[in-house]
Amino acid sequence: MTRRIALISTGGTIEKTYDELRGVLENQVSVLDIMLASLELRGITVHRVPLMNKDSLEMSPEDHTLIAQTAALLAASYDGVVVVHGTDRLAVSGHRVVEIAGTPASPIVFTGAMRPYELRSTDALQNLTEALLAVQLVEPGVYVAMHNQVLAFPGVVKDRGAGTFVKRREAREG
Amino acid sequence: MTRRIALISTGGTIEKTYDELRGVLENQVSVLDIMLASLELRGITVHRVPLMNKDSLEMSPEDHTLIAQTAALLAASYDGVVVVHGTDRLAVSGHRVVEIAGTPASPIVFTGAMRPYELRSTDALQNLTEALLAVQLVEPGVYVAMHNQVLAFPGVVKDRGAGTFVKRREAREG
Amino acid sequence: MTRRIALISTGGTIEKTYDELRGVLENQVSVLDIMLASLELRGITVHRVPLMNKDSLEMSPEDHTLIAQTAALLAASYDGVVVVHGTDRLAVSGHRVVEIAGTPASPIVFTGAMRPYELRSTDALQNLTEALLAVQLVEPGVYVAMHNQVLAFPGVVKDRGAGTFVKRREAREG
Amino acid sequence: MTRRIALISTGGTIEKTYDELRGVLENQVSVLDIMLASLELRGITVHRVPLMNKDSLEMSPEDHTLIAQTAALLAASYDGVVVVHGTDRLAVSGHRVVEIAGTPASPIVFTGAMRPYELRSTDALQNLTEALLAVQLVEPGVYVAMHNQVLAFPGVVKDRGAGTFVKRREAREG
Repeated sequence: MTRRIALISTGGTIEKTYDELRGVLENQVSVLDIMLASLELRGITVHRVPLMNKDSLEMSPEDHTLIAQTAALLAASYDGVVVVHGTDRLAVSGHRVVEIAGTPASPIVFTGAMRPYELRSTDALQNLTEALLAVQLVEPGVYVAMHNQVLAFPGVVKDRGAGTFVKRREAREG
Repeated sequence: MTRRIALISTGGTIEKTYDELRGVLENQVSVLDIMLASLELRGITVHRVPLMNKDSLEMSPEDHTLIAQTAALLAASYDGVVVVHGTDRLAVSGHRVVEIAGTPASPIVFTGAMRPYELRSTDALQNLTEALLAVQLVEPGVYVAMHNQVLAFPGVVKDRGAGTFVKRREAREG
Repeated sequence: MTRRIALISTGGTIEKTYDELRGVLENQVSVLDIMLASLELRGITVHRVPLMNKDSLEMSPEDHTLIAQTAALLAASYDGVVVVHGTDRLAVSGHRVVEIAGTPASPIVFTGAMRPYELRSTDALQNLTEALLAVQLVEPGVYVAMHNQVLAFPGVVKDRGAGTFVKRREAREG
Repeated sequence: MTRRIALISTGGTIEKTYDELRGVLENQVSVLDIMLASLELRGITVHRVPLMNKDSLEMSPEDHTLIAQTAALLAASYDGVVVVHGTDRLAVSGHRVVEIAGTPASPIVFTGAMRPYELRSTDALQNLTEALLAVQLVEPGVYVAMHNQVLAFPGVVKDRGAGTFVKRREAREG
């Protein structure tokens, strides 16, 4: 059985590319298709939904609501939804889905990265791999999958000092 | 909560390294520690059990039994067990666990690779990432996690033509 | 015969590393030793001189003079000198060497990169490889080696539009 | 000024690719074009001559003669010739060029690799980079460029113990 997964991309560190004339990393073009092509995906078919390409620090409340509504909508017609998102405001979008949709019809799994895919050393492929697997294994609900951990919303926060996500009670000051 | 995972390595393509004087890929030293160091593992602590380092085509019946017994034993004292194994005889060891242990105390997840970690293009890190995540998410049982798919024993076979694992009824001739 | 080469590092894009908490590429620690360890260097021994670690856009006139004086000094006691430098002001330091030292006692070869070594796709290793080879093959003088080209000072300018170095008459507006 | 370089490929370790169904490294398709695409080549235009794709241990005397004749012929009409060759018999082809052509009209530079380009850790790109630069800088003659060293024929031998090339008097037993 092949599961049908919707993959919403919104930007974030994971998708940043290097502008060599200006010497900066920016959200300009999506590298998600290159990442997907480097993985062997036998269990799923992926439907790409390139919603926006933003550093999440620049997302407006309307952006978060749009992401949450789109994820909830797609959860009704796909076997699962993966959302690629900047980590700084990922938890905002995650909680917005819970507010809007409660428990969605199929699992919605957020992921992102601390280091862009374009870097030689990056957590981008690991995190995308984990999100694409977790979405097949967990019960319907809203999650973040990253750094070999799957955490359920609500109550997920970014631990800025550790550079990863934790359940609220475990968060350290960063 | 941090899960305690036992990681049994037995060799296989995933661990082959290149002997530049003889120009061949062989199972000589384990590259699993290098792979683990390249991943961000927040959800688990890994206990390494380097059991053997063999191309699985060279495993004896006693090797398969030793692997199965060790996995079943460790499943009783860890939250999960991952077994890195050559793909050609992975299903033999997987079925041996089911024969010996039935449903183990915690999940046992086999994985391997079609292309060694030492290659520029490889499925090794993807598969190891998936096994380390799946072992946290599935019910106690025996599985293979590879190519974004988690399949439960018994009934798993290698589809040689496709270079991946499938449930028996789906297998193509290779 | 093994040639003794002095390798002066001054920073620049080639050495920038990624600060994952702040999400920027900066000159903080030198990655030159990692680059050197990834090359097979049979023809030379390398003496490392970590002079500074700056984006060349932030170099003062005194910085350029210090770099030029150090290179000229080392050229008197080594078989060759390689200078790793930010490309934006590389030509300033190169011309300063010619002003101060004329034709040095042994070849002085500048190099740099348009894309940091830390990126998955980078010209850093290519350019360092070329500088370390060119310094063994050219006559005493001052050069830049980059992008499979060796150009002699004076008269070298950065072609900003093309992202490389050219002799002055060939420069395009960038 | 852009130099016109002919690039003859003959196979060897540098071009070996991995056959995942049989688990072996073999000379089947040329990866030279992928290597060339990953380099920034501003000083030259490259004319590809895919002559053969063999492990050099399997080259016949006629193969060595064909390689030498082709290199000498192209040296008359190009600014330089690079020959990618298995290292085990590279010196045989190099000496054959000297026998046939003496000092060719333009430089002929052989190169190869101890570890295939397909490996994560490889000397292939370094050696190709060096050959493409050396061919622009040396006097007409026959050379091997590899491991940051350029050696002139005749008198070059492979040092099997060290896994590199040396002038005959320096060779160690391997």
